[in-house]
Amino acid sequence: MAQLNANKTIATLEPSLIPNLPTSSVTLFEAKKQKNLTFAEIAQRIGRGEVAVAALFYGQSKASAEDIQALSEILGVDHAKLNEQLAGWPDRGRSGPMPPKEPLVYRLYEIVQNYGLAYKAVLNEMFGDGIMSAIAFSTKIEREVDDKGAEWAIITMRGKWLPFTRF
Amino acid sequence: MAQLNANKTIATLEPSLIPNLPTSSVTLFEAKKQKNLTFAEIAQRIGRGEVAVAALFYGQSKASAEDIQALSEILGVDHAKLNEQLAGWPDRGRSGPMPPKEPLVYRLYEIVQNYGLAYKAVLNEMFGDGIMSAIAFSTKIEREVDDKGAEWAIITMRGKWLPFTRF
Amino acid sequence: MAQLNANKTIATLEPSLIPNLPTSSVTLFEAKKQKNLTFAEIAQRIGRGEVAVAALFYGQSKASAEDIQALSEILGVDHAKLNEQLAGWPDRGRSGPMPPKEPLVYRLYEIVQNYGLAYKAVLNEMFGDGIMSAIAFSTKIEREVDDKGAEWAIITMRGKWLPFTRF
Amino acid sequence: MAQLNANKTIATLEPSLIPNLPTSSVTLFEAKKQKNLTFAEIAQRIGRGEVAVAALFYGQSKASAEDIQALSEILGVDHAKLNEQLAGWPDRGRSGPMPPKEPLVYRLYEIVQNYGLAYKAVLNEMFGDGIMSAIAFSTKIEREVDDKGAEWAIITMRGKWLPFTRF
Amino acid sequence: MAQLNANKTIATLEPSLIPNLPTSSVTLFEAKKQKNLTFAEIAQRIGRGEVAVAALFYGQSKASAEDIQALSEILGVDHAKLNEQLAGWPDRGRSGPMPPKEPLVYRLYEIVQNYGLAYKAVLNEMFGDGIMSAIAFSTKIEREVDDKGAEWAIITMRGKWLPFTRF
Amino acid sequence: MAQLNANKTIATLEPSLIPNLPTSSVTLFEAKKQKNLTFAEIAQRIGRGEVAVAALFYGQSKASAEDIQALSEILGVDHAKLNEQLAGWPDRGRSGPMPPKEPLVYRLYEIVQNYGLAYKAVLNEMFGDGIMSAIAFSTKIEREVDDKGAEWAIITMRGKWLPFTRF
Amino acid sequence: MAQLNANKTIATLEPSLIPNLPTSSVTLFEAKKQKNLTFAEIAQRIGRGEVAVAALFYGQSKASAEDIQALSEILGVDHAKLNEQLAGWPDRGRSGPMPPKEPLVYRLYEIVQNYGLAYKAVLNEMFGDGIMSAIAFSTKIEREVDDKGAEWAIITMRGKWLPFTRF
Amino acid sequence: MAQLNANKTIATLEPSLIPNLPTSSVTLFEAKKQKNLTFAEIAQRIGRGEVAVAALFYGQSKASAEDIQALSEILGVDHAKLNEQLAGWPDRGRSGPMPPKEPLVYRLYEIVQNYGLAYKAVLNEMFGDGIMSAIAFSTKIEREVDDKGAEWAIITMRGKWLPFTRF
Amino acid sequence: MAQLNANKTIATLEPSLIPNLPTSSVTLFEAKKQKNLTFAEIAQRIGRGEVAVAALFYGQSKASAEDIQALSEILGVDHAKLNEQLAGWPDRGRSGPMPPKEPLVYRLYEIVQNYGLAYKAVLNEMFGDGIMSAIAFSTKIEREVDDKGAEWAIITMRGKWLPFTRF
Amino acid sequence: MAQLNANKTIATLEPSLIPNLPTSSVTLFEAKKQKNLTFAEIAQRIGRGEVAVAALFYGQSKASAEDIQALSEILGVDHAKLNEQLAGWPDRGRSGPMPPKEPLVYRLYEIVQNYGLAYKAVLNEMFGDGIMSAIAFSTKIEREVDDKGAEWAIITMRGKWLPFTRF
Repeated sequence: MAQLNANKTIATLEPSLIPNLPTSSVTLFEAKKQKNLTFAEIAQRIGRGEVAVAALFYGQSKASAEDIQALSEILGVDHAKLNEQLAGWPDRGRSGPMPPKEPLVYRLYEIVQNYGLAYKAVLNEMFGDGIMSAIAFSTKIEREVDDKGAEWAIITMRGKWLPFTRF
Repeated sequence: MAQLNANKTIATLEPSLIPNLPTSSVTLFEAKKQKNLTFAEIAQRIGRGEVAVAALFYGQSKASAEDIQALSEILGVDHAKLNEQLAGWPDRGRSGPMPPKEPLVYRLYEIVQNYGLAYKAVLNEMFGDGIMSAIAFSTKIEREVDDKGAEWAIITMRGKWLPFTRF
Repeated sequence: MAQLNANKTIATLEPSLIPNLPTSSVTLFEAKKQKNLTFAEIAQRIGRGEVAVAALFYGQSKASAEDIQALSEILGVDHAKLNEQLAGWPDRGRSGPMPPKEPLVYRLYEIVQNYGLAYKAVLNEMFGDGIMSAIAFSTKIEREVDDKGAEWAIITMRGKWLPFTRF
Repeated sequence: MAQLNANKTIATLEPSLIPNLPTSSVTLFEAKKQKNLTFAEIAQRIGRGEVAVAALFYGQSKASAEDIQALSEILGVDHAKLNEQLAGWPDRGRSGPMPPKEPLVYRLYEIVQNYGLAYKAVLNEMFGDGIMSAIAFSTKIEREVDDKGAEWAIITMRGKWLPFTRF
Repeated sequence: MAQLNANKTIATLEPSLIPNLPTSSVTLFEAKKQKNLTFAEIAQRIGRGEVAVAALFYGQSKASAEDIQALSEILGVDHAKLNEQLAGWPDRGRSGPMPPKEPLVYRLYEIVQNYGLAYKAVLNEMFGDGIMSAIAFSTKIEREVDDKGAEWAIITMRGKWLPFTRF
Repeated sequence: MAQLNANKTIATLEPSLIPNLPTSSVTLFEAKKQKNLTFAEIAQRIGRGEVAVAALFYGQSKASAEDIQALSEILGVDHAKLNEQLAGWPDRGRSGPMPPKEPLVYRLYEIVQNYGLAYKAVLNEMFGDGIMSAIAFSTKIEREVDDKGAEWAIITMRGKWLPFTRF
Repeated sequence: MAQLNANKTIATLEPSLIPNLPTSSVTLFEAKKQKNLTFAEIAQRIGRGEVAVAALFYGQSKASAEDIQALSEILGVDHAKLNEQLAGWPDRGRSGPMPPKEPLVYRLYEIVQNYGLAYKAVLNEMFGDGIMSAIAFSTKIEREVDDKGAEWAIITMRGKWLPFTRF
Repeated sequence: MAQLNANKTIATLEPSLIPNLPTSSVTLFEAKKQKNLTFAEIAQRIGRGEVAVAALFYGQSKASAEDIQALSEILGVDHAKLNEQLAGWPDRGRSGPMPPKEPLVYRLYEIVQNYGLAYKAVLNEMFGDGIMSAIAFSTKIEREVDDKGAEWAIITMRGKWLPFTRF
Repeated sequence: MAQLNANKTIATLEPSLIPNLPTSSVTLFEAKKQKNLTFAEIAQRIGRGEVAVAALFYGQSKASAEDIQALSEILGVDHAKLNEQLAGWPDRGRSGPMPPKEPLVYRLYEIVQNYGLAYKAVLNEMFGDGIMSAIAFSTKIEREVDDKGAEWAIITMRGKWLPFTRF
Repeated sequence: MAQLNANKTIATLEPSLIPNLPTSSVTLFEAKKQKNLTFAEIAQRIGRGEVAVAALFYGQSKASAEDIQALSEILGVDHAKLNEQLAGWPDRGRSGPMPPKEPLVYRLYEIVQNYGLAYKAVLNEMFGDGIMSAIAFSTKIEREVDDKGAEWAIITMRGKWLPFTRF
């Protein structure tokens, strides 16, 4: 956990995104800033992955009753308020325009654009006719430092294989 | 290597894609069909990843002189012919329309759409201001079977972290 | 099976669609026309649904070895030829432009456009946080005649409920 | 009615959708939350389908005078207020962007994209030249549990067959 | 029938449209040119409207057995050939790009763009909640000369009113 | 005038459209609701067509000084206020998105999409090289009841024929 | 006519445009190259404007019987052939993609984009409620050399003013 | 100056455009309405073209210090206020959507769409390889009445010819 | 630094852009206007490039702690306030619509459109298979006056060459 | 000229681009491959920049009579043939789709997207109200190796400053 040091910088909520996000996003990000917590710290304490927690903050993932309880405690937000704001089911798909304009997000889009057919061909040979689920799915980010001291980001996506039903 | 069995099925080239692909794609896929080889088998023999080999077949990745030599031998394609067809630099980005219409490829697109902001927030907290490179980059697919016998696909993306230059 | 009468009309392949379809589509539709068979008749004989068979003819569904054997016999197409043309995995998503320009297909699109949020709200209340799969999925069409002799089409879509994985 | 239990969760209105919805949506969803009612419960009491009721809440369906009377009573909303807000004719087609970004709604869109031509071919063979109406139309959702305990969602769409007029 | 004079000019098929039209379009338009017939003349002889006949030539309308018989005679085309080419169901919606680039067609599009809401408001007040069908529908064009000798085109669209089903 | 009965329902202004409409739309629709008048009733009293009046209410048509005077009286709106709000020239083309999402408006769009080339061919044969004007233009809606009691909507569009200038 | 000198360069047909243009375009441009004629020279001899002649070559303008006669003589093309190829009515709107990618054409588009509202405001104040026709319309290009020897292009567009019909 | 009569009508600012325009637009249009001035009158007094003045009012053109001084006097707006609001450089290109929905502006767009290639061919023959500048550019509108009393609008665009630099 | 003269004009913030920019943009541009500073002046004092500083003002570049300190002093903005507003990571890609409507920005886009393939071919021959980074990247603008007194803008882009990783 | 070594690799023409390029592109690229020449070598011999030469090969730049003479000699192509193929004026803007799918070209697009407003603000402060021309324009690419041996690409764009004409 290299980033848990004194001069850490935490992600905050870009105000111009607010109109497209649920009310809970404002509540959660403000409390996060007050408490000066990274997603890694929050994730560790509620027992979920960092990406899942960040997605939850952006309204792209569902909070369980336990998550709400834990977030309320960690962030110091009134439980009833948080409970109400997180009661609904996420209206997913709000992570900005597609194709992404943000360079970091665009790189992920570019990977799909460049390697899409290759992924499909290899997955079909490995598993047959079907898809890798994005619902029965988890993802995580890891950090690696190579011999020369260069940093590498490693994104792992793990999805259940769903074969097409024959009918 | 569970898929290296007798009744394996190999990926072939969808004819309607040909007009958008380089000449080498037709040559390579035809030879692959003749030799009845999976990408896993080819990858193992030329010492590259399966996704990289599939991308090379679709004209989305560059072949080195050694790759051309090895492919010529494995696939039984005339070296000079292959050398000429693979001489240029790939015109990448040809993996079908965006948003993808193919369900398997769409799922990857959907992951970017749903988790884009979350990936960015976590990567920024972990590494600072920059991007994960899609160029200084590798990717692989693995197969996992869980306790209940269900299959899972695991895609790993490993990209160098590039901090924004301050100027 | 009201449509199995003497003056039946069968669906044929619109020539301007050919460049976007796999080679198998031409083979299958030509044989169907030669044999003067409806999708209902073919479906009954190979033991699959009519929509699945039509999708297979348009290259949007995968044929099993048994399907190929049965189609070869019913349609009088050389088995080896059919086997080769149907060997690959479908490159799905080719059913024309979106939004659909064809009035019949547009009506289905319009249903999604008008009732999308309503479907989501009801499904979430009924099942929780997840989606109805379009992969672990089957669909069929039925015909109904009401009291006044008017015909109604009934489309049934049956998809496995996939809850979002908590991670 | 498996979902009518103590710990039921009800669908609420995502605030960021409000600017695109009629005033009645806010009134109805707030009352629904106050009364803690599912669409199934409301539908049962006013004698309409669940999807129709949800569509009505999102301003995508018309309320009759009887509906308004019943909703006023069930939800405890002033009749005159509700009557005024529901007086107009719906401006349909507001269920979010197309292609849908929401994964659940996207799956329905994908079904149209993948099976559009197949539906058309089968419907034409069954009924002749025409369309399945999306106006003289009803739809419902059912829940099924298979042998292994897995849940399946079943969407039924029933539309009048409209033959093209010969002129 | 002011246009049935000696120096009449007849509509022919723009070659660049051919790849998007069915085979029958080429057959029909070539025969029409050989026989030097206007749509008005053909329509009169087969007992259908001019727009319907033109739509049939462009593959946007279905020919009945009687139509095929009559067209075969009038145009001097082999009946079997015409019967085969017109056997399928039209894949409608091929009348060029939308928004239309052709000025004449654009004007019709502009009428929908400018008067769409007005048409809806007046139709709702007149008929209630529903739509004017474009399927149970006919249309015709008439020519009028005003007092000053100026020509006016009059397009009439007649569609069945379909009320939304309450469900 | 079948619709001028006791239980008539009048068209009102969908609030979510307001940001895209001129100020006059709000004034006019509110007064219309207060007076409980249909467009047919207003049209009859100011001597214009119903569609023109509805278009004027949506800011898609220009009011003459006489129109303003008459509307002020019929609707009970202060003349000076109305005069100021209707002083400008309409910024036409605001009748919602294209392709239309509203089913009723979409049907009109579909007619253009399906019959565009047919209209052009027939108009060219009838009038020569030119267009039907959408400016020197009027339109009306009529209601017809057929033998079986079914309702039909009839839209008439009358536009001046403009030949292309030879230069 | 400064450009009528010995080392003149003439416009030819870009081969990649051919699939989108009528057959006549190829015939006309080839003959133009054979005869080494500019549009100015042709225009002068057939008594039409240069832009009109160029538009006619690109299939965007209609040729009269006299034009065909004159073009046949000037260009040395068989009259019957030219007559047949130019018999139809132009399918206008084929001048490349919009927004234009060609820098010269883009500049004209940019003028509309930047000055559109200004043109409308000034035209409305000058003429009232209406449009400048693009049909009852002519256009020409002139060349001017200023004091410093710099060249200026002057495009004049002259369109009939069409007031909106009050209905 | 035919339009400088007693019952002149002046262009005002459509309120729904305000969010996309600079603050100066509101100030200028309000003062214009107060003073009841046409663009022709303002243009005459500050010595610029009418279109340029209208463009300046819509924030699409830059005001010089002298313009600001003159506008302040003519319109009776505080000089300091106007100076501050007009201090920046215009963010051009805000004249509504493209393709234009407004019929008047669309006609200009249509001219580019129909005659784009023709303009290019004639300009190339006349001037060589280059473009007509839209920056070193001026434009004006004139009014003409023909023999029969019909009005014609004449738009003149004058742009410097810029040859492509050879490098 | 030719532009550091008495009658300099400084860039200010177009109000209609504010909803898409971070809060810091308003703070920074207001202070810049108060202090009447050009980007060149600010850049010189904080030791960064002018384009980088302008990008920082538009929220498209990250400020270091030293930058915040320096900007606070130069612009007279409270350090804590600036620190909070500039704490997050930029959400890049907000520089207006693409294709750009602004003529100045469009010219840069046009260069990419026209010379894209040429840049790629030359870079590939010079460096091999890879890209020029836009992250490990700097850019600057210079001003040049040629012999005839004409001004030229020179934009330099310097990006690290990233070879594609072989995997 | 580090790249002029024995094992140089030269850019060739991607076959799938051919339908969108002029005939000359095929001729030029084939000769280039025969002669095994880089753009740098050709540029040096005809006295033009490398990017200009590559643009000329892709049909995006005009060849002078001298260029054609020199290219004919260097590439060993028949002068008359080359002269005819390069006679027309380029139809510029064909460098692939926008946004670019090719990663190398996309990076340039991204620079415009991210720094567009910043470039505009700095250029306006430096030069006033105008644009940097993309016509009176040249560009070049240079290669730099830094202290650590890393390669950098440097793109320089030099365009004439064009002030907006006041009219």
